[in-house]
Amino acid sequence: MAQEYDLVILGGGTGGYVAAIRASQLGLKTALVEKGKLGGTCLHNGCIPSKALLRSAEVYATAKRSDEYGVMTSDVTVDFGKVQERKGKIVETLHKGVQHLMKQGKIDVYEGLGRILGPSIFSPMPGTISVEMNNGEENEMLIPKNVIVATGSRPRTLPGLEIGGNVMTSDEALKLEEIPSSIIIVGGGVIGIEWASMLSDFGAEVTVIEYADRIIPTEDKEISKEMQRLMKKKGVKIVTNAKVLPETLSQGDQVTISAEVKGEQKQFSAEKLLVSVGRQANTEGIGIENTDIQVEKGAILVNEYYQTKESHIYAIGDVIGGLQLAHVASHEGITAVEHIAGNNPSPLDYRLISKCIYSSPEAASVGYTEDEAKEKGYKVKTGKFSFRAIGKALVYGESDGFVKIIADEETNDLLGVHMIGPHVTDMISEAGLAMVLDATPWEVAHTIHPHPTLSEAIGEAALAVEGKAIHG
Amino acid sequence: MAQEYDLVILGGGTGGYVAAIRASQLGLKTALVEKGKLGGTCLHNGCIPSKALLRSAEVYATAKRSDEYGVMTSDVTVDFGKVQERKGKIVETLHKGVQHLMKQGKIDVYEGLGRILGPSIFSPMPGTISVEMNNGEENEMLIPKNVIVATGSRPRTLPGLEIGGNVMTSDEALKLEEIPSSIIIVGGGVIGIEWASMLSDFGAEVTVIEYADRIIPTEDKEISKEMQRLMKKKGVKIVTNAKVLPETLSQGDQVTISAEVKGEQKQFSAEKLLVSVGRQANTEGIGIENTDIQVEKGAILVNEYYQTKESHIYAIGDVIGGLQLAHVASHEGITAVEHIAGNNPSPLDYRLISKCIYSSPEAASVGYTEDEAKEKGYKVKTGKFSFRAIGKALVYGESDGFVKIIADEETNDLLGVHMIGPHVTDMISEAGLAMVLDATPWEVAHTIHPHPTLSEAIGEAALAVEGKAIHG
Repeated sequence: MAQEYDLVILGGGTGGYVAAIRASQLGLKTALVEKGKLGGTCLHNGCIPSKALLRSAEVYATAKRSDEYGVMTSDVTVDFGKVQERKGKIVETLHKGVQHLMKQGKIDVYEGLGRILGPSIFSPMPGTISVEMNNGEENEMLIPKNVIVATGSRPRTLPGLEIGGNVMTSDEALKLEEIPSSIIIVGGGVIGIEWASMLSDFGAEVTVIEYADRIIPTEDKEISKEMQRLMKKKGVKIVTNAKVLPETLSQGDQVTISAEVKGEQKQFSAEKLLVSVGRQANTEGIGIENTDIQVEKGAILVNEYYQTKESHIYAIGDVIGGLQLAHVASHEGITAVEHIAGNNPSPLDYRLISKCIYSSPEAASVGYTEDEAKEKGYKVKTGKFSFRAIGKALVYGESDGFVKIIADEETNDLLGVHMIGPHVTDMISEAGLAMVLDATPWEVAHTIHPHPTLSEAIGEAALAVEGKAIHG
Repeated sequence: MAQEYDLVILGGGTGGYVAAIRASQLGLKTALVEKGKLGGTCLHNGCIPSKALLRSAEVYATAKRSDEYGVMTSDVTVDFGKVQERKGKIVETLHKGVQHLMKQGKIDVYEGLGRILGPSIFSPMPGTISVEMNNGEENEMLIPKNVIVATGSRPRTLPGLEIGGNVMTSDEALKLEEIPSSIIIVGGGVIGIEWASMLSDFGAEVTVIEYADRIIPTEDKEISKEMQRLMKKKGVKIVTNAKVLPETLSQGDQVTISAEVKGEQKQFSAEKLLVSVGRQANTEGIGIENTDIQVEKGAILVNEYYQTKESHIYAIGDVIGGLQLAHVASHEGITAVEHIAGNNPSPLDYRLISKCIYSSPEAASVGYTEDEAKEKGYKVKTGKFSFRAIGKALVYGESDGFVKIIADEETNDLLGVHMIGPHVTDMISEAGLAMVLDATPWEVAHTIHPHPTLSEAIGEAALAVEGKAIHG
């Protein structure tokens, strides 16, 4: 039997399910089609499980050095089975939460693989959705006025670097049953560095191999440099300017691989190898070929309201490429739904989107890096303030890192805020709000940051832009 | 020999030394007079040492329940001597930092007790400062164009509740050599609750006796209620509507005291008793009687630029009463100095000042409580979002608490933001900035809070004001 909907969403990840909730709030009759589990990559294979492991690693690292705080412990060990069990419970709690939200919003969830059909007996336009149900029952036919494609992405690997055995992507790494004694991480981007930090804190010997001349190369150079320093301080080996030669991969007791490092070929061996070289959009098998939707460089092409070439079919989240972050997907979903509902939403300004790295130390940023700002022709002034001079950071026992603020010398506008240090992922939203409201560094400095808090570093960095930091 | 200055500051606490730095930045020839240690109450007897103890208590509490995170420990104990040693080191590091900043700013520091003289051979106006030097040398005479009185405050006690033996204020409590087995805390305000949380986490049996009908009575009612619930959950006994009868105090093996609780007289006994009933301005012994400066209800009377009745003598910080917070003192100092320098500063808007409570859980707020907003005649709408529905809070392992946003139904202006839960003291500055920039809840919600962070609770609470929370 065919069901009619205002909106059918393909994919129940953070992009899709959030879009469904907003659609329901706006009174749209909405269906969500998900082959796997509601919550998608972020909840089941990404943000949440990896942060749960990172939190256990943090507790372990703190417990091991608890004597610094006057807390005496003995026999501090990791029960990795319990760590994984805790992770699983958190994921399951949130998974149930999403299921509950779908019920609360009266959103019909179809568990199966949705495919977009071309013009058919149901509709003269492409967009009818055929759902191949997981339970093996007859395909469901959904006839929507609008469609949102939110099918997400999967980890990419390098040709010749096949996943299997001791070679993993983050998907497999999340299911590890034991902490490896040693690991090679190919790719020193956000995911690679989070895994490096976590596994190193858990006691693994970690080597990161990065193609670029620095780790987390999309971040501000000074952030990269400080992160590299602090990763090395905890024992992570970092090899930059290194081109992995995938065809050299061999697996025996150890995984061995070669890389060309500044013209020289070097060999690396470890118990495991993690490939973290980005993610690939899931554009296949969903019937795109039955439509005029365009795919470019592996991602679905959309306009500023996330409409594809078929104006009633939208695409959001990782499947359209770009930043590939959960909160970006959600807000793209909300924007698409508001557009479908005729609410004339403002297009997202990607310059205003905060990015977080949940390593220890954490890093977070919003806006341009110093180099980007200069490339765009801005005359730049910067203010930087170290957590070493922040009382609360000393109290907390983690005073590495800093806040760096980049402003336009001419207009005094904030151009970017970059942070590395304790709790910065929770503090970046202040900078995000400042950017959204087009605040000047003076306005940020004028906001009284309570004492003693870590956020004082933001106020001081803002003052430092004018050379007026108090504790600098 | 008499020295001339543009500015002499009495008191080197957070108000005085920050004022001195700004004065130095503005090119004023500045002297600071301090009888005790640079950094004052905040650094030596307040914020910093108490937060250091709280952090050790947090590490202890986390280590004890580390198995929840898959981290196995045994024999978790507190070495309170080491806890105190760590506290002392942090204070000393920051103390040296302040000394360094004074040198860097070329600020003359006089170690001694400064007193304001009346008209004298040095000046026809009151304001010459005579410094009785700590080192016993002859008094120094300082002839300033302007004076800032920043002499701070000291803990208050109740008549009949003499400090000594096992009866302490926070000053003595900070020097405890052992964790008491049990303690009565008279006063359930911010300081009382921080001590209750810390000592309870360290294993003491804690009873809080509060005169009002709720603890932290200056906070929003819902915050008080949640804090009371969470304090009770960790085993703190809380007695509200209780009038301590100081004359009933007796000390033997135990401290015993009676209180009238809802008309009934009840007796309380414990090893120690902590009096935390507010602070008293230090207005005595500094020569105020030689001037026209007015003291009202124990605090120096000032105008919006912190000028006393002697327009060249300013007063800032705890000595003028009001909020009595370190960051308030600093910003009052900066405002006073900018006024002295003729820079026409904007007066502080005390409604925009954030307040923090560093208990576990933390609490933080800015702006009006719901009741205050209603009393002021606002038609109020509120949004509330629980940390239970925030993925990062589950990951962190602390998901009690919530964010509550209060807005004006008519103008849509933010009126207040109130938070209780993990890391809220570091996140309140986003709300502070929103209030300073007169943001609407919509603008706060429109700022993309990265996932997964604790700050998402702020974005969701802002959406909840319009009934549009995604995960609510």
